[in-house]
Amino acid sequence: MSTVRVAINGYGTIGKRVADAVDAQDDMEVVGVTKTGPSFGCEMAVRKNFDIYCTSDDPDMIASFESSPFKCKGGLKDLLSISDVVIDCSPGKMGAENLGKYQDAGVKSIFQGGEKHSLTGLSYTSCANHSENYGAETTRVVSCNTTGLSRTLVPLYEHCGSLKVECTMIRRAADPGDSKKGPINAIKPVLKVPSHHGPDVMTVKPEIEINSLAVAVPTTIMHVHAIIADLPEGHGLSTESVIEMWKSSPRVIVMNGEGNRITTTAEVMEMARDIGRKWGDLHEIFVWEDGVRLMGNRLYYFQAIHQESDVIPENIDCVRALMEIEKNWQKSVKKTDDAISSYYNI
Amino acid sequence: MSTVRVAINGYGTIGKRVADAVDAQDDMEVVGVTKTGPSFGCEMAVRKNFDIYCTSDDPDMIASFESSPFKCKGGLKDLLSISDVVIDCSPGKMGAENLGKYQDAGVKSIFQGGEKHSLTGLSYTSCANHSENYGAETTRVVSCNTTGLSRTLVPLYEHCGSLKVECTMIRRAADPGDSKKGPINAIKPVLKVPSHHGPDVMTVKPEIEINSLAVAVPTTIMHVHAIIADLPEGHGLSTESVIEMWKSSPRVIVMNGEGNRITTTAEVMEMARDIGRKWGDLHEIFVWEDGVRLMGNRLYYFQAIHQESDVIPENIDCVRALMEIEKNWQKSVKKTDDAISSYYNI
Amino acid sequence: MSTVRVAINGYGTIGKRVADAVDAQDDMEVVGVTKTGPSFGCEMAVRKNFDIYCTSDDPDMIASFESSPFKCKGGLKDLLSISDVVIDCSPGKMGAENLGKYQDAGVKSIFQGGEKHSLTGLSYTSCANHSENYGAETTRVVSCNTTGLSRTLVPLYEHCGSLKVECTMIRRAADPGDSKKGPINAIKPVLKVPSHHGPDVMTVKPEIEINSLAVAVPTTIMHVHAIIADLPEGHGLSTESVIEMWKSSPRVIVMNGEGNRITTTAEVMEMARDIGRKWGDLHEIFVWEDGVRLMGNRLYYFQAIHQESDVIPENIDCVRALMEIEKNWQKSVKKTDDAISSYYNI
Amino acid sequence: MSTVRVAINGYGTIGKRVADAVDAQDDMEVVGVTKTGPSFGCEMAVRKNFDIYCTSDDPDMIASFESSPFKCKGGLKDLLSISDVVIDCSPGKMGAENLGKYQDAGVKSIFQGGEKHSLTGLSYTSCANHSENYGAETTRVVSCNTTGLSRTLVPLYEHCGSLKVECTMIRRAADPGDSKKGPINAIKPVLKVPSHHGPDVMTVKPEIEINSLAVAVPTTIMHVHAIIADLPEGHGLSTESVIEMWKSSPRVIVMNGEGNRITTTAEVMEMARDIGRKWGDLHEIFVWEDGVRLMGNRLYYFQAIHQESDVIPENIDCVRALMEIEKNWQKSVKKTDDAISSYYNI
Repeated sequence: MSTVRVAINGYGTIGKRVADAVDAQDDMEVVGVTKTGPSFGCEMAVRKNFDIYCTSDDPDMIASFESSPFKCKGGLKDLLSISDVVIDCSPGKMGAENLGKYQDAGVKSIFQGGEKHSLTGLSYTSCANHSENYGAETTRVVSCNTTGLSRTLVPLYEHCGSLKVECTMIRRAADPGDSKKGPINAIKPVLKVPSHHGPDVMTVKPEIEINSLAVAVPTTIMHVHAIIADLPEGHGLSTESVIEMWKSSPRVIVMNGEGNRITTTAEVMEMARDIGRKWGDLHEIFVWEDGVRLMGNRLYYFQAIHQESDVIPENIDCVRALMEIEKNWQKSVKKTDDAISSYYNI
Repeated sequence: MSTVRVAINGYGTIGKRVADAVDAQDDMEVVGVTKTGPSFGCEMAVRKNFDIYCTSDDPDMIASFESSPFKCKGGLKDLLSISDVVIDCSPGKMGAENLGKYQDAGVKSIFQGGEKHSLTGLSYTSCANHSENYGAETTRVVSCNTTGLSRTLVPLYEHCGSLKVECTMIRRAADPGDSKKGPINAIKPVLKVPSHHGPDVMTVKPEIEINSLAVAVPTTIMHVHAIIADLPEGHGLSTESVIEMWKSSPRVIVMNGEGNRITTTAEVMEMARDIGRKWGDLHEIFVWEDGVRLMGNRLYYFQAIHQESDVIPENIDCVRALMEIEKNWQKSVKKTDDAISSYYNI
Repeated sequence: MSTVRVAINGYGTIGKRVADAVDAQDDMEVVGVTKTGPSFGCEMAVRKNFDIYCTSDDPDMIASFESSPFKCKGGLKDLLSISDVVIDCSPGKMGAENLGKYQDAGVKSIFQGGEKHSLTGLSYTSCANHSENYGAETTRVVSCNTTGLSRTLVPLYEHCGSLKVECTMIRRAADPGDSKKGPINAIKPVLKVPSHHGPDVMTVKPEIEINSLAVAVPTTIMHVHAIIADLPEGHGLSTESVIEMWKSSPRVIVMNGEGNRITTTAEVMEMARDIGRKWGDLHEIFVWEDGVRLMGNRLYYFQAIHQESDVIPENIDCVRALMEIEKNWQKSVKKTDDAISSYYNI
Repeated sequence: MSTVRVAINGYGTIGKRVADAVDAQDDMEVVGVTKTGPSFGCEMAVRKNFDIYCTSDDPDMIASFESSPFKCKGGLKDLLSISDVVIDCSPGKMGAENLGKYQDAGVKSIFQGGEKHSLTGLSYTSCANHSENYGAETTRVVSCNTTGLSRTLVPLYEHCGSLKVECTMIRRAADPGDSKKGPINAIKPVLKVPSHHGPDVMTVKPEIEINSLAVAVPTTIMHVHAIIADLPEGHGLSTESVIEMWKSSPRVIVMNGEGNRITTTAEVMEMARDIGRKWGDLHEIFVWEDGVRLMGNRLYYFQAIHQESDVIPENIDCVRALMEIEKNWQKSVKKTDDAISSYYNI
């Protein structure tokens, strides 16, 4: 079987990570990444031997690369003409415009969580609805928060048959490389109540009832979810069996916080740096084992989300779903993660 | 009627504020404040004309003031001998030892939320159980968080007759004057799940069912509560009527966040500084009007708590309860707040 | 003598403080403050009984107050017509336009440090050049940083006769009430080297040679200056005598940091809150006594600047200079500070 | 030639990085790392196939590993017995005790900047005094700050023949993995004036006259130095030639901040993550090209220091100096950096 040819449209925070992850797989390859113009980000593409294309098809914008050290191989149309699927990592709200271009070029497409579900009418999370996405023309990998919720809630739902959830999201206010945004010393509630974050889970697993509240806080490194899940009568679970369930779920790390001195997101991220993936990324959701408690039918727990990277392996699995490479989501997840680990880890 | 003689044992973050508030009332007076030794805090007592006593009765510790510019009028025993009631603002966990001293001196006593309910067997919040505390020998004013929860939940409970609550507390990790504690860039979940904060409400209003989760975040100025309250069938409330209820509840400020550009705790605290109370304090709980939403029987809302000051007026009301000065809690609250406002405000 | 009639054009962070300070003096009065439209800030003006005018003379903008609870007495022109002097506290870079209006109305004017020296050709700091400003038509009170530098450098210069200074400014990145600006976790150097801050001192004391470097850091409460001053040969000073000089200089607080446990700007601001001025302001510059060291001819020291308030009393003195009320700067400073203290302090 | 056998005593923030860097070289190997007991850090050693020894020789402490998944091969003495040189990365102030053990074992030793110069009487920086350390028995690699200063000042000194420097250090208050330390919202001056940081440069290059002031600020990711260097008359340099000098100096990155949108330490660290070294480390000192300015004889510039990693390659060069492997420092630096880059980079 020939490898799937993947275009990355937008080579920023998410795009650069997705490109690296595609490059690490043996059943797909990066045929090109796009930049709006010659800038610092191009260096990384050069270092990785990725062909650079211009985000636009405007000849002037393409020509802007000529006086730079970076070679531009053409416009977006040129890139699409040699691609099987495009992963759209452009900076939010360009979805409608881009989708038209992808459809015109006859190329399948994957959007990110910054776009709305209504754009594609279909969303994706590996553990939730891989098979529903099998062979689809276009879909959307849900946001970092929604992905994180699915990782722990879907196995719970599948055991219980029903689930009613409330989640309070304590969100990092800016990414580590963003020095513009505040607040420096404040907590900012998202006054739209309930927030859009929780219900987005229902785009990949409609059977889970969920609402959420959200606040932003002055930190850059991870979101934390404080979750309350009501299980149905007769769930048959205990605090211990829930922990065991998550320990055997893919892309979930369950660790004792007090025992390992991992009591804040700072220590979680430090552990991630030790693992040695590029950018210090943590694709897995981190659950504090000693922060899980089932009281009657109500389950309480905390989880931490690395907002820059948990969706990266989901994009890889999503390529396999759309391109009909692997129908079994668990097999895809294993293949993805093995490649990323052997590639990144030291 | 002669004024009630109040001793303040411990003149720190809470003690200095309580002393000022007692001093502003016409039915009570500060007969002395205690310090462990001559230090910067004594200057404020001198400025306010409060007599200084030593926290200890040890002659050596009392003598340590002699070589300082601050006059010490004696030990704790001396202070208690001229007091009717003592407000214990000492730094946590000295309750048991101190209670014995107060009882030996035959003086009524009020502890703060750092002590456990079991110390006194009785706790206090103005709006929850003023009358249960009437004439009591000793009690405990609950913590800033518990006080804040009572302010909005008790009126709700009294309307509904029952209430089931989950609260996620996003807590400031250190006070503004504390430069030692972190984290600088992390979120710290309280791994004891559920946390002790919510259930503490039941020490003043046992009929409210409540649990809580808590995280600490890198800010110094306020706690935020994200609250989910399940009302009983037939509650007859709407989002609007809940807002009206709180607008007419004492010590609750309800303001539109977007409309007034008060979208984070930074702007709430700035508004408090404008009001002009000393230390920029905000005794009231701040509820974002546009963050309240009742969906069916489930009510969602956010509130912000000024951790340094919301319990201050509660201590004043509590003196009136213990000393049997005023049986009607609303009258006490009004008297307290009028005095504090005319005293502090410009 | 009748009181001087002062208009405050712009009633924000600086304007609200200046208005309060004018109001506290017996030789001047606030005849009105301006707002662009009816908003939350008007409440404070009402509370203080200040007449509200519209920043603009546009009838539509003036009319916008009609449907609000706030009474607008007219436009800027109306306000100027009953004023002797206007203190311009409008948000930066409107100076040229506003100066024309003031001149047309025949009203003297005082601008803030956000405007350039070239606008007025004259700048003001109480301790540096009060007499040069005596009777002037228009001037500019220098910025918080420049004011802070003048407070400690001018007495030093006056003793030594010459002075060569390098200052590194570690600046708070946003004010406490500003939740928009970052960075949350970074240090931002001002890449224009040397920075404009230091040389601005030469607009009020041209004989002091000074340059500066600046960085912004993730804190909201104070700037810190790390200063190196080269004294001329034969200066005759010692570390101790420099400290004594500053202790006797107005609006400078010199305190031992280790001894008083005031080791960061957090504790300095907490001390300011204890003093009891509105907003927890600290008009004085704070010098750490144990951070001063003279080695040969080179003097090292740290000082902290409360960016929101150190210029407030300077504006009062400046009114007296322009209106020829008090020629002696020290007398004006004493009068200003006594009034502010008796007014604010409890 | 056989490879040099290196022991790493202490496998924490610095130790884990040094071990990786030794492992990447072809002329030395890690014969073992020490831990006080079985803990999370051991996992990383296992993953890297490093033999684990106990920091102590106490049989009970060694035995504590038995019930853990980690195999302990013996005590420190056992490790030293198979080592040629030990790199001491133990947590500060254990130097004197450890040095005795190393001497008893007849093993050469390298300490870190947390120990004083007086312990070894000799200090090390690759670019400053490699040859003075050639063949030495024991030395100390200077701190991250001193290393950073040497990188830019030594080439400057070597060109000019003399140099007088003042540096203000704006220091990160805690490391990224440390959630305990504050301040959250304050600036903390180091009241010992001048601070010890600058003069430490003189332990490796005594000819450079230097003093420093230091403050700690609420960030975790990098130190920033604001530097003023007085060059001697006739230095013959310009802003441009200084920049060129540093561009050709090892382990210094000079980049335009505005042009590359790298205006704070946040963007510098993001660039480091893109480079792809483990932990997102940046061994190089980052100088903002547009923040360099030579005015007459006075040079102003800013540089940023990755406190966790800039000393790592220095330890490798230092092994070569002590073990007399490579006399030419530039050759050692090149060898070290090539190995680290090919090893880490993707």
